[in-house]
Amino acid sequence: MPITKEAIEKAHERIKPFIHRTPVLTCQSINKIAGAELYFKCENFQKIGAFKIRGGMNAALSLTPDQLKNGVATHSSGNHAQAMAFAAQTLGVKAYIVMPSTSPKVKVDAVRGYGAEITFCEPNQAAREEALQKIVAETGAAFVHPYDDHRVITGQATCVKELIEEITDLDAVVAPVGGGGLLSGTALGAKYFGDQITVFAGEPEGAADAVLSFKSGVVEKAPFVKTIADGLMTALSTQTLSIIQENVKDILLVSEDGIKAALRLVYERMKIVVEPSCVVPLAAVLRNKKLFEGKKTGIILTGGNVDLSKFAEWFA
Amino acid sequence: MPITKEAIEKAHERIKPFIHRTPVLTCQSINKIAGAELYFKCENFQKIGAFKIRGGMNAALSLTPDQLKNGVATHSSGNHAQAMAFAAQTLGVKAYIVMPSTSPKVKVDAVRGYGAEITFCEPNQAAREEALQKIVAETGAAFVHPYDDHRVITGQATCVKELIEEITDLDAVVAPVGGGGLLSGTALGAKYFGDQITVFAGEPEGAADAVLSFKSGVVEKAPFVKTIADGLMTALSTQTLSIIQENVKDILLVSEDGIKAALRLVYERMKIVVEPSCVVPLAAVLRNKKLFEGKKTGIILTGGNVDLSKFAEWFA
Repeated sequence: MPITKEAIEKAHERIKPFIHRTPVLTCQSINKIAGAELYFKCENFQKIGAFKIRGGMNAALSLTPDQLKNGVATHSSGNHAQAMAFAAQTLGVKAYIVMPSTSPKVKVDAVRGYGAEITFCEPNQAAREEALQKIVAETGAAFVHPYDDHRVITGQATCVKELIEEITDLDAVVAPVGGGGLLSGTALGAKYFGDQITVFAGEPEGAADAVLSFKSGVVEKAPFVKTIADGLMTALSTQTLSIIQENVKDILLVSEDGIKAALRLVYERMKIVVEPSCVVPLAAVLRNKKLFEGKKTGIILTGGNVDLSKFAEWFA
Repeated sequence: MPITKEAIEKAHERIKPFIHRTPVLTCQSINKIAGAELYFKCENFQKIGAFKIRGGMNAALSLTPDQLKNGVATHSSGNHAQAMAFAAQTLGVKAYIVMPSTSPKVKVDAVRGYGAEITFCEPNQAAREEALQKIVAETGAAFVHPYDDHRVITGQATCVKELIEEITDLDAVVAPVGGGGLLSGTALGAKYFGDQITVFAGEPEGAADAVLSFKSGVVEKAPFVKTIADGLMTALSTQTLSIIQENVKDILLVSEDGIKAALRLVYERMKIVVEPSCVVPLAAVLRNKKLFEGKKTGIILTGGNVDLSKFAEWFA
């Protein structure tokens, strides 16, 4: 089912009472370094600390009372787990979250803090899916996939919609790409609500599946997975790839050093806490200055849920 | 010369074109932990990354053209150095900054980035003052002390003025205390612009001079100086002590563990980058919950100029 402009508008109205309208920040000194006019949409200040609440809440609110009554379920070690837990708590139903046994304590605590029931599994995809299917069979909970779900993609599209409402004459938007939920939503939102906005993605060299899939047209695996941008390790789905191929101009790879340098810039110059995955678009802009020279460029800063013990490694 | 309400109003008009109107942020989860309604005035987002630009700019703008023409001079290893350098650059005059030879490279680079001329000296007070006197004698530059200067105190008072304009019914305000420039300005601003606001200070146990001076009525030294709140290591002056004794309710000591816990809260929950000195007021509120229970309490977050290599120590 294609995602229409009207669907995104309806999703925005649906989730508005439950989310923050996050600020758009600018930074003169980063603009000077980039040689571009950058507008940062700060989803690190969003409810649950990340944009994922948009898709998660839209999916939960799209369920019928009968579909919703037994709660919601998902598998995630990251922000989507918190999003579904928060959405369920807000709507007064149960959340069942399958998390790998290796999940950081800080993430487990956050999900538990929203009252979700956590099931631990072995840290691989098959174990996740098996544990989830068992829970869904036992409880009748509604499964909401982290990104391979049109309700989730539609919800994520509301982020760029807000950005465009504020900065009406953007030339370009750059989003990070992991499973492609945010990127495909951003591409559709930019097409429907913007005026000729070119959409780019940033992807770590250490999780370079999307750039390969984008070229071949089929979902590829990354040659290797090793990056501090831990929110971007997943591969695209057929659905997100198809939207991305049609609506995204290019996927720009960035190095780990580039991610670290961009992360340092955001902490030092903007004085805000963001996840490494967030700064992949900024790293892409800094690596491709000619492409963005003088352009009004929107950047989605996706979230700020960091494990502070990682700072030593990131800022060594 | 007493600092009047009118003087603060004039200072505010004077510096407005050169500073940011910083946002006031709230955080539900920290409110829940504190049992109070906290309003954070975010001077980490201020020009030069700290409130010090208010006092420094007000002092520079208060000079006559003849006093200003040979530039400005100060000794500081911290944010006041950046403030005077930025003020001088903005007004098109020279800045001469005496910095201890042990100053972190990141601070030296920032001051140099604003075009100031740096003179290094041995890291002690006598060497600082000697180097400064020599520069002033040679250049005719106007000396602006970091806090023992009524123009600086008047400038710092504009911060709480803005906070009160936004949150009109505050019960209390808490500021950190080092040399007392911000605290005395905050106390005067709260008295003139607020409605019965009680002013408290937070001070590290590892730099506990102000609490002793406050009790004895004379400027005392700290029993020992060892704290991660490196902006608060200086002692009061006779001038700041006198204003503080008259207008501040109490000075609340906090432990190093308390500072680290508050720092973690601000990074994790508010997603903003602040200096350890900033969170001393929050640590004081969390250590004295009964005092602030249910109270609308303003907190000045003083700055965000951090050396990222310190994160490993702070968040160990």
